[in-house]
Amino acid sequence: METILYNGVFYTLDEAYQSCSAMAIKNGVIIALGSDEEILQLKSEETNLINLEGKFVLPGFIDSHMHFLGVAQQADLVDLTSVKSFEEASEKCIEKIKELNDTSKWVFATGFNQDYWENKVIPTRKDLDKISEEYPIVMRRACGHVSVCNTKGLEVLGLLHEVESETKYELGFYEDGTPNGFLLETTQGLYLNAQPEPTFEELQRMIINCANYAASKGITEIQTDDFIMNLEDAGKGMMKLYKFLASTDQLPIRIYQQCSLREEETLDEFLSNGNCTGDEYGLYKIGPLKLMADGSLGAHTAWMRKPYMNDPETCGASNMTDEKMYTLMKRAHDAGMQIATHCIGDAALEQTINMYDRIQKENPRVDCRHGIVHCQIMDKELQDRFKKQNVLAYVQPIFLKSDMNIVDDCVGEEIAKQSYNWRRFCDLGVHQSGGSDCPVEPFDILPNLEYAVTRTNPDTGKSWYKENAVTIQEAIKMFTYEGAYASFSENVRGTLSVGKYADLVVLDENLLEIPAEQIHNVDVLMTMVNGKIVFKKN
Amino acid sequence: METILYNGVFYTLDEAYQSCSAMAIKNGVIIALGSDEEILQLKSEETNLINLEGKFVLPGFIDSHMHFLGVAQQADLVDLTSVKSFEEASEKCIEKIKELNDTSKWVFATGFNQDYWENKVIPTRKDLDKISEEYPIVMRRACGHVSVCNTKGLEVLGLLHEVESETKYELGFYEDGTPNGFLLETTQGLYLNAQPEPTFEELQRMIINCANYAASKGITEIQTDDFIMNLEDAGKGMMKLYKFLASTDQLPIRIYQQCSLREEETLDEFLSNGNCTGDEYGLYKIGPLKLMADGSLGAHTAWMRKPYMNDPETCGASNMTDEKMYTLMKRAHDAGMQIATHCIGDAALEQTINMYDRIQKENPRVDCRHGIVHCQIMDKELQDRFKKQNVLAYVQPIFLKSDMNIVDDCVGEEIAKQSYNWRRFCDLGVHQSGGSDCPVEPFDILPNLEYAVTRTNPDTGKSWYKENAVTIQEAIKMFTYEGAYASFSENVRGTLSVGKYADLVVLDENLLEIPAEQIHNVDVLMTMVNGKIVFKKN
Repeated sequence: METILYNGVFYTLDEAYQSCSAMAIKNGVIIALGSDEEILQLKSEETNLINLEGKFVLPGFIDSHMHFLGVAQQADLVDLTSVKSFEEASEKCIEKIKELNDTSKWVFATGFNQDYWENKVIPTRKDLDKISEEYPIVMRRACGHVSVCNTKGLEVLGLLHEVESETKYELGFYEDGTPNGFLLETTQGLYLNAQPEPTFEELQRMIINCANYAASKGITEIQTDDFIMNLEDAGKGMMKLYKFLASTDQLPIRIYQQCSLREEETLDEFLSNGNCTGDEYGLYKIGPLKLMADGSLGAHTAWMRKPYMNDPETCGASNMTDEKMYTLMKRAHDAGMQIATHCIGDAALEQTINMYDRIQKENPRVDCRHGIVHCQIMDKELQDRFKKQNVLAYVQPIFLKSDMNIVDDCVGEEIAKQSYNWRRFCDLGVHQSGGSDCPVEPFDILPNLEYAVTRTNPDTGKSWYKENAVTIQEAIKMFTYEGAYASFSENVRGTLSVGKYADLVVLDENLLEIPAEQIHNVDVLMTMVNGKIVFKKN
Repeated sequence: METILYNGVFYTLDEAYQSCSAMAIKNGVIIALGSDEEILQLKSEETNLINLEGKFVLPGFIDSHMHFLGVAQQADLVDLTSVKSFEEASEKCIEKIKELNDTSKWVFATGFNQDYWENKVIPTRKDLDKISEEYPIVMRRACGHVSVCNTKGLEVLGLLHEVESETKYELGFYEDGTPNGFLLETTQGLYLNAQPEPTFEELQRMIINCANYAASKGITEIQTDDFIMNLEDAGKGMMKLYKFLASTDQLPIRIYQQCSLREEETLDEFLSNGNCTGDEYGLYKIGPLKLMADGSLGAHTAWMRKPYMNDPETCGASNMTDEKMYTLMKRAHDAGMQIATHCIGDAALEQTINMYDRIQKENPRVDCRHGIVHCQIMDKELQDRFKKQNVLAYVQPIFLKSDMNIVDDCVGEEIAKQSYNWRRFCDLGVHQSGGSDCPVEPFDILPNLEYAVTRTNPDTGKSWYKENAVTIQEAIKMFTYEGAYASFSENVRGTLSVGKYADLVVLDENLLEIPAEQIHNVDVLMTMVNGKIVFKKN
């Protein structure tokens, strides 16, 4: 036997393999599970024997929605995810400016969330000018739906003289009609395009670093939406990069590609190049068409059926007309693609779920596994439709950390208590997988498991509709088996079973035994993909 | 909507679809499940509305092991399955002789089981000579492992002057060393080959008739081992026939081919023609390599680890050396085939399960779903190995009808109570599907469900180790979901779920509510495959 793990506590998620303490692995496949006594009999001289020292083993975590390239690039950026004020953010930018020492380069800061600041106001252009008037600066909010530029930044982008009544861009404006520096939604592409393009080699390095980071968090598969990097190349750049990394065996973890193809032309090009859900290239696999039906809650761009209670002028914004959504979905569905659509507001959910119904009724397909990413604001009736149409839910429990402070104000208690209701998705038998949505939230599964179970902020002790929580067993299933289900791989991954790939994580605590509020402190000791150790704690 | 079924009681086997009374279907796919009120809203002028009148609906039955061509041909043969004595069998043959009126033709009778006769002795050549000395006569036992010829039959086959000590055939002999007319195992091929070959058109007619009969029994998929018809053509004849029927839309039900390829040459030819498990041609799909590790219990050819207690001279017979089994299995496994092996005795089970272990350890493959057909004589340790190696069990509950009378005598109570232990397979979490093994037993699922639950002969009231019975829910799962699992189709069939094919059966009683001993009397009212009605009771 190639590898034997023994003296562990295995939580396999497979009823056929209960109370196991050891596992034998060969060629990446689980060959046997059982007691130490049984499994150690398979030992030979060549066997790599690993003593788990009584630690807890479970299937590798699967992050069913995030933006991998964004995370990878972020490592090179000014990280604002943990700053507590605009002043602190400014200091970090000033440090970066000293490092850059070249006014043609951008100060690119990302991950701020003013909801965590004392002064809960998004800074504007003039605030950023206090940091520098020479360097172009942009600060991207954690949600990814809004960024702020300073005056120099707007100038470089040619947006400084935009006028509210005439602009074709999605910008924010001061009361006097001049730009306040906000770039909304796809308009953010302008400054992304203004950055010097990373070279293929730089991207490779960033991706590999980030994949190794994922492995250190016990993550063995990510489902990532990152075609957005270059919206016009129909995914060719990202696919080339990932395929190269997979074929040269440089990927430590599996990647399932959520393909953001938001225009007919790019989708057609993608399909006519012969791409489809399920195409596999080693550890890299093509996933669903990824669409966006609306924006974010924090930016009030999530599309609601009723106006925001704390912002009655707006219902948020639809990202696509019915006609455009139909055209894209119909084409993908008929070509055999899976579809996953970002929906946060109930109007977006309703639009998308109606459209899934329509394309499926027009051309009934078996086992297509279309899904909705986020599934935040909803009522029971909308939630029931996931079951009725067999639509997958992709949820991010960690969102509660921030959203528990704003949802009641946005939609009122009546809707809020029906929203983010993972308990009921479980009870309905809906396929519900879990994700981090990193870089919106940290690239870490354990805090997600904790929020799924406690619905409580461990720092403040504040809870939110705890009756909608799931059990730790259900939470683990969301980030393992259901993730595998979402990538059509539950028959070969997602549980620890004989005849599946040895994708697993070893933790220093038994998640089924420790108090739920300690889950976020649990350490990852080892991660294995295809029977290969891709992370081991020193 | 194309078709709506309403006013039914649906047992979907999918926790997401509980308490449904109606279903909408389009293009063969289940589009919606719910209440009458919900589903009838989808009605249009073109809708085929079907009132189920409160009847019980469940996923179509899947028969995971049988011999379809054998059943089809049997309809043209003298049917001895229900005769109660040799005299009655003789009368039926005499009737056939009058019909034939041509001494060059064979009287081919099949399906007898002397265990049900008052005089529980297999007749010999001289008994059959009393029926006719002019016509060649053969009587095949229900198990298919032994047949008896009369003198004229042996003469036509050139076997009359065989001598016990020198023969290369598997024959039975009288004490004086002359043939007693028994043809064992593959030697039966001699008289099969002596029959005039049915034409392609005759075969078509037989198959279609038989498939319609299956549909009338609520069967929507059969998994059939019938390459044996012509052992030397590497399945080409049968595949050609089934593919033709599938491509011309003449198959009312699905066929999953268990490929009996018992020699290296035929297996190699099959593989080098590009065939593999999973190849699909409409309703016809290529299944596992099907091998035979031993014979039958009734004929004492099932291969045991210890001698038969009631026949201490023999342990039965192994059908393959380890070397031959290894060669065939290794080749199939490495080529990506699934494997299913007939094993009745514990020695055969042990040989096969050891070999699965060996080929998997040499070349670990994910999700290969190798299995063992029959799984009769075993102890707990052998049974545990199904779980440990994730091997599928294919069982035939109806076998108890006959075997409950002989197993204790053959192997003793200690082993008998561990054998046919479907309860424990369920408890272990082993994938266990159900089959009829027709024509060995009748082509009918309901009596199988009853035996799985009652382990009691409804005619005699005799039970056998009732503690090894399963629940009706588990029994139904064996003949629906687990059958689909065995043919790699559980994601598109095997439960009634939105986004799966509409393969279903309507019964006139609710299996979950009636006393189990009435199950065999339940009537099939309607059968649907791919949303098309393939049987409806007048």
